Amino acid sequence: MITKNTVKTIQSLKQAKYRKEHQLFIVEGRKTVEELLLSPFETTALYATEQFLTEHNYQNARLETVTEVQMEQMSALDTPPGILAVARIPQPSTIKDDGMVLALDGIANPGNMGTIIRTAEWFGIKQIVCSEDCVEIWNPKVIQATMGSIFRMDIVSTDLVRFLDSEKLKGKAVYGALLEGENLFRMPRWEHGIIVIGSESHGIRNNLIPMITHPITIPRAEGSVTESLNASMATGIILANYAAKS
Amino acid sequence: MITKNTVKTIQSLKQAKYRKEHQLFIVEGRKTVEELLLSPFETTALYATEQFLTEHNYQNARLETVTEVQMEQMSALDTPPGILAVARIPQPSTIKDDGMVLALDGIANPGNMGTIIRTAEWFGIKQIVCSEDCVEIWNPKVIQATMGSIFRMDIVSTDLVRFLDSEKLKGKAVYGALLEGENLFRMPRWEHGIIVIGSESHGIRNNLIPMITHPITIPRAEGSVTESLNASMATGIILANYAAKS
Repeated sequence: MITKNTVKTIQSLKQAKYRKEHQLFIVEGRKTVEELLLSPFETTALYATEQFLTEHNYQNARLETVTEVQMEQMSALDTPPGILAVARIPQPSTIKDDGMVLALDGIANPGNMGTIIRTAEWFGIKQIVCSEDCVEIWNPKVIQATMGSIFRMDIVSTDLVRFLDSEKLKGKAVYGALLEGENLFRMPRWEHGIIVIGSESHGIRNNLIPMITHPITIPRAEGSVTESLNASMATGIILANYAAKS
Repeated sequence: MITKNTVKTIQSLKQAKYRKEHQLFIVEGRKTVEELLLSPFETTALYATEQFLTEHNYQNARLETVTEVQMEQMSALDTPPGILAVARIPQPSTIKDDGMVLALDGIANPGNMGTIIRTAEWFGIKQIVCSEDCVEIWNPKVIQATMGSIFRMDIVSTDLVRFLDSEKLKGKAVYGALLEGENLFRMPRWEHGIIVIGSESHGIRNNLIPMITHPITIPRAEGSVTESLNASMATGIILANYAAKS
């Protein structure tokens, strides 16, 4: 049986500082938990409610049954799906040098971050480099929005200025989504390199702009007065264009 | 001064049935409220907190000051932005017959619906036709996610089967995002017609599938095992492709 203390520890994992302290994070929902169990990530615990087990034929040696109340306490979601796993945060990865890399500058919204990770996997991106002020990727809302892609994407958190300025990027194409850039739809082809995406509210930071070698823009229809696209939407449209032309 | 009864009425507008009863909806946040005031929509009331008015130089004859507590009661957001308007739901529009029309089949998530409306405006879509079981567009979370595009988009709710089967659509291209379709990236051009997008969980309903004349698919990168894209992301990628080739 699960102890009060364990419930309390899992409850604390909704906050970044306790995820960091314990090096653990929460995974919820049948689909995402299954993706976790299929992944190389270490699952440290697995809980489900009676209700969930009545509705789903679920077999797992590690599974512990908890009450609805305990699940509500542990869950980070408004409507707990009834199954929750605890997983270990993996060792930080290092920056690789193959294929197109996606660099995120200050993406703050967890839903956007999760959607970007999911979409990046769809279009074959192997590594995402996040600035240090991006939302922490082990946030339950990020995990949820990735629909399991988080377990298959290599994600590094780093100082983006230093990364983009580093010796090994010399000569590489650094694409950046800016308001004034080449029309994405008219770009004949993509070179391998980096795609930089700015934050929801400020775009790409000023100190990164000199490092952008290829400014690109998603053209707006004539007559449209919308000011911007959602950050994850812009990323997806750019990645689709890259996938279409590479 | 705002009365308790008015606060209660506005509070009730968080629920679809009271929006329908009063034919009113809530708009929050400086940017979206400004878009409302610039639009042909009728604003019936406008409220801000002292705090908001201290931080923003905001002039509007109709503006009434409310307390933080009253604002919290009326607001549909976790963190009330401090400015809230009440607007009248416009008369239902009719289906027009020009340009590309976007048809949404059972989009249930308010964030997805709002993002679709915002992105559709960016790419020049003039009308969206929603199935009757789509999330109601006057839902505060939809309004929020549109970032003001809701006031400039013509949106009709209708029986999609009857619409797609109607006489005036005969001979038109009906594009549909399906798992098995023509590779979106290889489509040479788009004809004017309809783009049908299915729901987050079930895709396009079975009874609509025979009406799809042009099944299309967003190709996934080789080796990727992601099962799907988010519904609003898929819509945005398709609309970007349409915009690029038309």
